Amino acid sequence: MEQYIKTGLVGATGYTGMELARLMIGHPVFKLVLATSRKEAGKTLVDIFPHLQATILADVPLVSPDPDVLAKECDLVFLAVPHGTAMNIAAELLARKVRVIDLSADFRLHDAGVYEAWYNVTHTQQQLLSQAVYGLPELYAQDIAHAELIANPGCYPTSAILGLYPALQQGLIKTEDIVVDSKSGATGAGRKASVSSLFCEVNENFRAYNLGQHRHTPEIEQEVSVAASTPVTLSFNTHLVPIDRGILSTIYTRLNQPATLTAVHDLFTRFYAHKSWVRVLPQGALPQTKWVRGTMFCDIGLAVDPRTDRLIIVTAIDNLCRGASGQALANANIMFGLDQTLGLHGGTLIP
Amino acid sequence: MEQYIKTGLVGATGYTGMELARLMIGHPVFKLVLATSRKEAGKTLVDIFPHLQATILADVPLVSPDPDVLAKECDLVFLAVPHGTAMNIAAELLARKVRVIDLSADFRLHDAGVYEAWYNVTHTQQQLLSQAVYGLPELYAQDIAHAELIANPGCYPTSAILGLYPALQQGLIKTEDIVVDSKSGATGAGRKASVSSLFCEVNENFRAYNLGQHRHTPEIEQEVSVAASTPVTLSFNTHLVPIDRGILSTIYTRLNQPATLTAVHDLFTRFYAHKSWVRVLPQGALPQTKWVRGTMFCDIGLAVDPRTDRLIIVTAIDNLCRGASGQALANANIMFGLDQTLGLHGGTLIP
Amino acid sequence: MEQYIKTGLVGATGYTGMELARLMIGHPVFKLVLATSRKEAGKTLVDIFPHLQATILADVPLVSPDPDVLAKECDLVFLAVPHGTAMNIAAELLARKVRVIDLSADFRLHDAGVYEAWYNVTHTQQQLLSQAVYGLPELYAQDIAHAELIANPGCYPTSAILGLYPALQQGLIKTEDIVVDSKSGATGAGRKASVSSLFCEVNENFRAYNLGQHRHTPEIEQEVSVAASTPVTLSFNTHLVPIDRGILSTIYTRLNQPATLTAVHDLFTRFYAHKSWVRVLPQGALPQTKWVRGTMFCDIGLAVDPRTDRLIIVTAIDNLCRGASGQALANANIMFGLDQTLGLHGGTLIP
Amino acid sequence: MEQYIKTGLVGATGYTGMELARLMIGHPVFKLVLATSRKEAGKTLVDIFPHLQATILADVPLVSPDPDVLAKECDLVFLAVPHGTAMNIAAELLARKVRVIDLSADFRLHDAGVYEAWYNVTHTQQQLLSQAVYGLPELYAQDIAHAELIANPGCYPTSAILGLYPALQQGLIKTEDIVVDSKSGATGAGRKASVSSLFCEVNENFRAYNLGQHRHTPEIEQEVSVAASTPVTLSFNTHLVPIDRGILSTIYTRLNQPATLTAVHDLFTRFYAHKSWVRVLPQGALPQTKWVRGTMFCDIGLAVDPRTDRLIIVTAIDNLCRGASGQALANANIMFGLDQTLGLHGGTLIP
Repeated sequence: MEQYIKTGLVGATGYTGMELARLMIGHPVFKLVLATSRKEAGKTLVDIFPHLQATILADVPLVSPDPDVLAKECDLVFLAVPHGTAMNIAAELLARKVRVIDLSADFRLHDAGVYEAWYNVTHTQQQLLSQAVYGLPELYAQDIAHAELIANPGCYPTSAILGLYPALQQGLIKTEDIVVDSKSGATGAGRKASVSSLFCEVNENFRAYNLGQHRHTPEIEQEVSVAASTPVTLSFNTHLVPIDRGILSTIYTRLNQPATLTAVHDLFTRFYAHKSWVRVLPQGALPQTKWVRGTMFCDIGLAVDPRTDRLIIVTAIDNLCRGASGQALANANIMFGLDQTLGLHGGTLIP
Repeated sequence: MEQYIKTGLVGATGYTGMELARLMIGHPVFKLVLATSRKEAGKTLVDIFPHLQATILADVPLVSPDPDVLAKECDLVFLAVPHGTAMNIAAELLARKVRVIDLSADFRLHDAGVYEAWYNVTHTQQQLLSQAVYGLPELYAQDIAHAELIANPGCYPTSAILGLYPALQQGLIKTEDIVVDSKSGATGAGRKASVSSLFCEVNENFRAYNLGQHRHTPEIEQEVSVAASTPVTLSFNTHLVPIDRGILSTIYTRLNQPATLTAVHDLFTRFYAHKSWVRVLPQGALPQTKWVRGTMFCDIGLAVDPRTDRLIIVTAIDNLCRGASGQALANANIMFGLDQTLGLHGGTLIP
Repeated sequence: MEQYIKTGLVGATGYTGMELARLMIGHPVFKLVLATSRKEAGKTLVDIFPHLQATILADVPLVSPDPDVLAKECDLVFLAVPHGTAMNIAAELLARKVRVIDLSADFRLHDAGVYEAWYNVTHTQQQLLSQAVYGLPELYAQDIAHAELIANPGCYPTSAILGLYPALQQGLIKTEDIVVDSKSGATGAGRKASVSSLFCEVNENFRAYNLGQHRHTPEIEQEVSVAASTPVTLSFNTHLVPIDRGILSTIYTRLNQPATLTAVHDLFTRFYAHKSWVRVLPQGALPQTKWVRGTMFCDIGLAVDPRTDRLIIVTAIDNLCRGASGQALANANIMFGLDQTLGLHGGTLIP
Repeated sequence: MEQYIKTGLVGATGYTGMELARLMIGHPVFKLVLATSRKEAGKTLVDIFPHLQATILADVPLVSPDPDVLAKECDLVFLAVPHGTAMNIAAELLARKVRVIDLSADFRLHDAGVYEAWYNVTHTQQQLLSQAVYGLPELYAQDIAHAELIANPGCYPTSAILGLYPALQQGLIKTEDIVVDSKSGATGAGRKASVSSLFCEVNENFRAYNLGQHRHTPEIEQEVSVAASTPVTLSFNTHLVPIDRGILSTIYTRLNQPATLTAVHDLFTRFYAHKSWVRVLPQGALPQTKWVRGTMFCDIGLAVDPRTDRLIIVTAIDNLCRGASGQALANANIMFGLDQTLGLHGGTLIP
């Protein structure tokens, strides 16, 4: 068993922790040796997740988070704790030469001021920002390969950035008229007890929230500004869908000049030609969240509306897999020189 | 019982027919005396809808649609049949002096050419278009009161028009930069057997469809152009939510000049001050489809995004009640000089 | 407005409180004048339930529960608070000559010892047990009419008792071989923040709980023992269905002697011949929870299995309406000499 | 690639076909080379299942079912077509020396007369019944290893047999007092267009069907009679849950003599000690369908009710994976001498 790469998970009890555990069961190289939870320390994973009975993860011990213990036991640690908390643990682990993949927002924004303005938190580890790599494999695989610290992208940003990147980079659309209308399943709200996340409040319901004010806005803008080679300000808006998993973003853009669907489709297809996980759907087809459930796929559908000079880009991802833990594992693969799809080619669970 | 107004329902077996039946059970003046279904003729309503057992509608006979029979038995007929079919039945009934409320699209568009272009059907009753009244009570109550033929609004258009009207009429927003991103529950697809509407295809799924091409587009444009006093072309796009009932439309607009949320909220509140069914929610609150389920309410929430100069208007309705049968009954109330809310003040079924 | 009967609601913030509010909106005689909530005192109902905007209940004040205030303002008070808490408030109100309908379990069991054994709580108001009337209108309408204190039946017991009563009273089935397999929607778990009631824990899931140990067991046994004229011990078991509302109970019984479905169906039909809300479905038809949603109906379906000498009785109710607040309102109607169906004949919201 | 074992799938367009495809994507030895569909012949799998884009199955050709073609291309064929159709294809393939795993009911019942009585179909291949092996790996692994024809168990029977087997074999319970109350997700109804399977008919609904008359009854009785070493007649009853996947069976039995939960739990734990996929949950824990979703696990929970001398056994499986295609693949593994869990150890997709 020595050839395993030993990993730890800080923050085991949430949905991203559960998803990482799911993917670890089937991964041939990474081995989860330790998980942390202040509240559940002393138990094993199966005690809090009965569905792990009879799997290789059943007996993984739950311990209180201690950087020394983690550093001793692990080559790599995933942080699945809230922003604000993650940054300090990351610093402690990096100081002990452990590689870190942070699933929180703490290292995603290059500008600490922007972070502090949107998250209303002081950034205490700004010295690490320059070494953190934004872990979107389609854009930054080379940097990821040499990173010690990965800022794993947010779920909404993954869906928005992958949709907008080709169009902005190729100058297809206006930078000042972009609306991202995103819809997310309920796992996006996390696994905290709260009345607004109860079954009877979410089920048979659909609602908007955080219009124009979602904290993922600057993350999207940061990355699409790179694509556009100019600062982009856009309107990003979110909704809650009564499903467990999935984000679908409908992205409204204005064409710089008239274009056919065929031309746009070709451009996107070429851009993602050698990317394992981005599927530009055939012309006329539009994504469905169920088609990507449990996978790393980002499906993209395109529509051109000549009546209003608009290009509408629709993307769908699984917010827990592609939008969080699966992407984290992909980054881990790349960091350790493995095939990036290792342990990540399971088929879509459908229906 | 002579004081009842006798009504008929053409097309009983779909979801709008079921919803009209539900509302009829509690209505003190209208009485459903006859329903039609080619396939189920000879039965009674309870035979096809077991949930009507022990209600006053159980024994309503199902007959084949025959204008003479309908005219003999009914003062008013609701048409809940597909577009293309409704127009001819309407003509036959009007010729027999029966008032008609048509829930299809056949008489909604004033311009037959626009109708034919979007619906790909020949309009065979164009002479009736000028007398048809678009049955949106907030806008056309006076005309409805004297109408013989009501074109009952579409579900999506109801949600879009009520959201945009105040802003366009008051010159608050630009007419050339409007995106309506609508999400509808599955009753919107009707009650036809089809694989794409199966539980396992819709459940735990979210998808876009008909981007830029939905047939409700010209209906929305027709009415908001009245509000704007200028032709409006907009981008209208639709999605399928895994819920039974409800439409939520997120409407993206660009402000003509900077405005505060308070100012916009005041404008909307004043506009709908004396309307029973439009609820402008408190500042900061956003609609949820569950809050309006089973009711005539159209809830409106507002957000101003100074970063992008946008006013975002969110509306929620019950597509079957406000978006179809409830609105039809409201129109019937108005046509017959009754209080428009008669039989329509039931509380929201929540949760 | 003097002709209104003034009512109060103790415990406004749960699902039964919400349901009572819904039904009150349409009731022509009872008027909700006061609601209590320790946490929300000082607000009005619309502040905690935005869906009540523009209804007659919007401005009902929320106050801390005070028996003097309640007694001064109300002719009747509904208690929608947990067992253990309700009994003392009931005593205080009765002492002040206010009639009480208690939706908790505190006065349902005639034997305080049984109550204390199953609920693990001391019964501090045992002197009231003899005057409390079990509020199942089909069985106890005459007593309800003269009651000061109603013990409103539990949701599961309502579904089980109405299904078993005719068969036991007529000696159709063995008393010692009864299994009640019940399935409930998630509103049954109440509106408390808890991880196990989160959308993502309940949705796309089905599970059993409390097998053989549910607190509603003695309540069912108490009433069906009356029907059987002998003590009945039965197996009662519960499951959680991912729906908001509805209980379906599949009741397995053993026939005393062979019987045809027709004979059994006749017996049930005669038993409930003059009851407004119990619908014995046609032979061969089985209940669906959706057919009774939002209503007082208890639907009953029957199957005879000659292979195993079993009669299977299936019942469906809406747990919030028939199983709680609707039944409470029916009891209120009867207590105040009104038609028992007043305000309760709305049609099923379907779909 | 020569080391692949080539397989064919007859009947690709249903949910079991989709599930087999999902599992094939991750299987290291079996390769799907051919799928059949009369209606879709000439296309490839990705044409009918867009979610297979960019997977190794995308280009699998869809052809009309032709035994010669199948025999030429495949070492093993899975039959995912309706009963009555499967038997003849099986015969043709066996005659051509191709091994067959039949997911229909055609070869599950040893007694053709029983088959014909319950399925109302003439069995035209009775000569094959004696060589067909009932493919439940926990019971018949040795026979499966040498079989040419596997009768893959039904979904409900898998859940009922695995729950009852230990108790009956060990004489723990009475054979004449067994009730199986099963609840299934909607994939159990297949992928045919029908009104009763529409989203809006299934969602927010729960119903019983086929009480005492389900065709899986004789299959369950056949196998549990082996366990009991005496003919068992039981009551088997089914319900529809608004979820995609999952069967939960609550099995009511009567103890032969008093037993503690600990004793019963030990008995079950020992019985399944070396079985990879049966998980006897800890005492007090009860299964949830979500815990087994997408997996081969059969979870078993136990409750002893001394009040009524009953042992209640609860089992949960994924009806598409364990109850159909996953089990088929497990059988294929065993038939070809592979580790039975090969390609089947993916973690539960939760939530």
